[in-house]
Amino acid sequence: MKGEDGLVARIARLYAGAPLPRDAIGIGDDAAVVRAQGGGVLLVSTDLFVEGVHFDPRYVPPTFVGHKALAVAASDIGAMGGVPSGCLLSLAVPPRASGRLVEAVLAGFSGEALEIGIPLLGGDLSRSTSALVLDVVVLGRPAGRRPILRSGAKPPDRLYVTGALGGSGAGLLRLKAGARPSKALLEIPRGRPRPPGDDGWSRLDRAMETLSLMEHLRPRPPLAAGAAFGRSGLPTAMMDISDGLAIDLHRLCKASGVGARVHEEWVPVHPAARHFLGPRGLEAALGGGEDYELLLAAPSQCEARLKRIARRAGSDLIQIGEIAERHQGLRLVSREGRARPLPRVGFDHFAARGS
Amino acid sequence: MKGEDGLVARIARLYAGAPLPRDAIGIGDDAAVVRAQGGGVLLVSTDLFVEGVHFDPRYVPPTFVGHKALAVAASDIGAMGGVPSGCLLSLAVPPRASGRLVEAVLAGFSGEALEIGIPLLGGDLSRSTSALVLDVVVLGRPAGRRPILRSGAKPPDRLYVTGALGGSGAGLLRLKAGARPSKALLEIPRGRPRPPGDDGWSRLDRAMETLSLMEHLRPRPPLAAGAAFGRSGLPTAMMDISDGLAIDLHRLCKASGVGARVHEEWVPVHPAARHFLGPRGLEAALGGGEDYELLLAAPSQCEARLKRIARRAGSDLIQIGEIAERHQGLRLVSREGRARPLPRVGFDHFAARGS
Repeated sequence: MKGEDGLVARIARLYAGAPLPRDAIGIGDDAAVVRAQGGGVLLVSTDLFVEGVHFDPRYVPPTFVGHKALAVAASDIGAMGGVPSGCLLSLAVPPRASGRLVEAVLAGFSGEALEIGIPLLGGDLSRSTSALVLDVVVLGRPAGRRPILRSGAKPPDRLYVTGALGGSGAGLLRLKAGARPSKALLEIPRGRPRPPGDDGWSRLDRAMETLSLMEHLRPRPPLAAGAAFGRSGLPTAMMDISDGLAIDLHRLCKASGVGARVHEEWVPVHPAARHFLGPRGLEAALGGGEDYELLLAAPSQCEARLKRIARRAGSDLIQIGEIAERHQGLRLVSREGRARPLPRVGFDHFAARGS
Repeated sequence: MKGEDGLVARIARLYAGAPLPRDAIGIGDDAAVVRAQGGGVLLVSTDLFVEGVHFDPRYVPPTFVGHKALAVAASDIGAMGGVPSGCLLSLAVPPRASGRLVEAVLAGFSGEALEIGIPLLGGDLSRSTSALVLDVVVLGRPAGRRPILRSGAKPPDRLYVTGALGGSGAGLLRLKAGARPSKALLEIPRGRPRPPGDDGWSRLDRAMETLSLMEHLRPRPPLAAGAAFGRSGLPTAMMDISDGLAIDLHRLCKASGVGARVHEEWVPVHPAARHFLGPRGLEAALGGGEDYELLLAAPSQCEARLKRIARRAGSDLIQIGEIAERHQGLRLVSREGRARPLPRVGFDHFAARGS
């Protein structure tokens, strides 16, 4: 269950009855775990993608909407150590939307499904009264013997992420500043921005902008790493960073009943965030959100194996801190060794404070 | 895959790649069929429920919205001969919506989950820019050795429905005429309307109104019958009647590659539809939609067993016609034995023609 944490509590309060046991781990993780007839285990996640809330059509062309909606939903499966195996798409289309818009969204969605290698199994189509709404269901199977939950971290586990953070937030700022993606962005393999044009900006500016737009518009969650970690069974807790490292770490710690220390200088700030935001790049990394890298905890003696696994899957494994006792809370440790509470806020709040 | 048939075609056209085999029967039926790790089979359906499209908040109080969204989604599982085993709810809430509205929708949804006896496994919560949008995912397992699809009907199978049709359409007309449901409607067991008041209307008028509102606002799909039919393995094709008998029979026949004859006088017109619409009650039964009874085909030699199964599950089994060869098309046979094409339209179209 994602979204506002309040819903879970509200439903749990209202929802007195009906058997949760046997069939499910229950709400609260990136995906639900369901036992099928015959004993098989299936992961199921459902994600809303609402125009004006999850994407702004002024910045995000419809093809990218389709791509991103599925990528983000598939990330939930990887985040539990699973392998995506199929998807369903519900689409509510506003009356003003042209057939071309719908085709573009579907083309993006289908392209992403092809890229991930999963079939479209079904869905629903409806009119909408105003906004374009997608709900994406992704099914998957645990890569290992069991899915990896958020709830198993314990001190003195180390805390890791699988890649640089803040790139998506920087991309959103560039979009708001007027940058527009080229169609070619759809074709660019991760990490290889196309050659810059010659329009005043430095080659580096242009490359960094393209890189940040790619992170924001065409996120490619580390699905291979998630599955490989799941297969290894080594992480004690794992989730994806969708709303920002700070908020999501709060969630992981709450689920595990632990505290944590994050070392500022260990946090891998995305080069584009550093390029465009300077020292405030760290704020984008902590609170920007939508990076879809994995956040995981594991005992230190597993580190060498986990690093090998990550590398084989095309990802990094970067220690950002360690799990602490619950009463120690969540602390952000500065270069100088001073610890302050890790604020439970997203990038916008950081930015407002900083500017 | 429900909704406009066009989406399936559009996606199939765009969607050249990725393996459908092994894992899925594919799009087109009420729910997707997924093979879980370990060999189990799982049914998955996803259904949108959009304010202003699937329900009009002027007529449908939020508690009923929650109830109906889940009932309707669960119907997809029963329609494939399955047993619902869990659900997920995605909810996009407009800014103007009060906390009370959300609580009421959730209370209705939770109440329905309790009534069906399935746990809520997860979901997503988001803001919406304007309309309230629900997307309901229901998981299930086939009650028998395999799910029952739409595609197995062949002549001379008989064609059946599990209950009276047109009640929901009549209820919508009463709502549009100003009728309002009492809260007590939530508590009334199916088929036992509460005693009428004394306000000019006859007791029968009042009872019929209550009955029709119940059909429209609190549909109770014949989940037990669907599962029991699935367990028996006897029906050659099955689906639920969501958009109206006429349209849905067209879909079943298309999937099975057959034609059909429907006998006007065999169609069980709901008493409320007959009461309020007189001879036009048949039009509501053919095109009203939202009745959520089952439509199924089976060889005549199975009829006695199917009738026993239906009765034990609290449903009827009513023959309305028979499957024909494809080239014979879909015909509606009048009392006098005259056959005309079965129009592929919903109730509104019937009504417009008739009035």
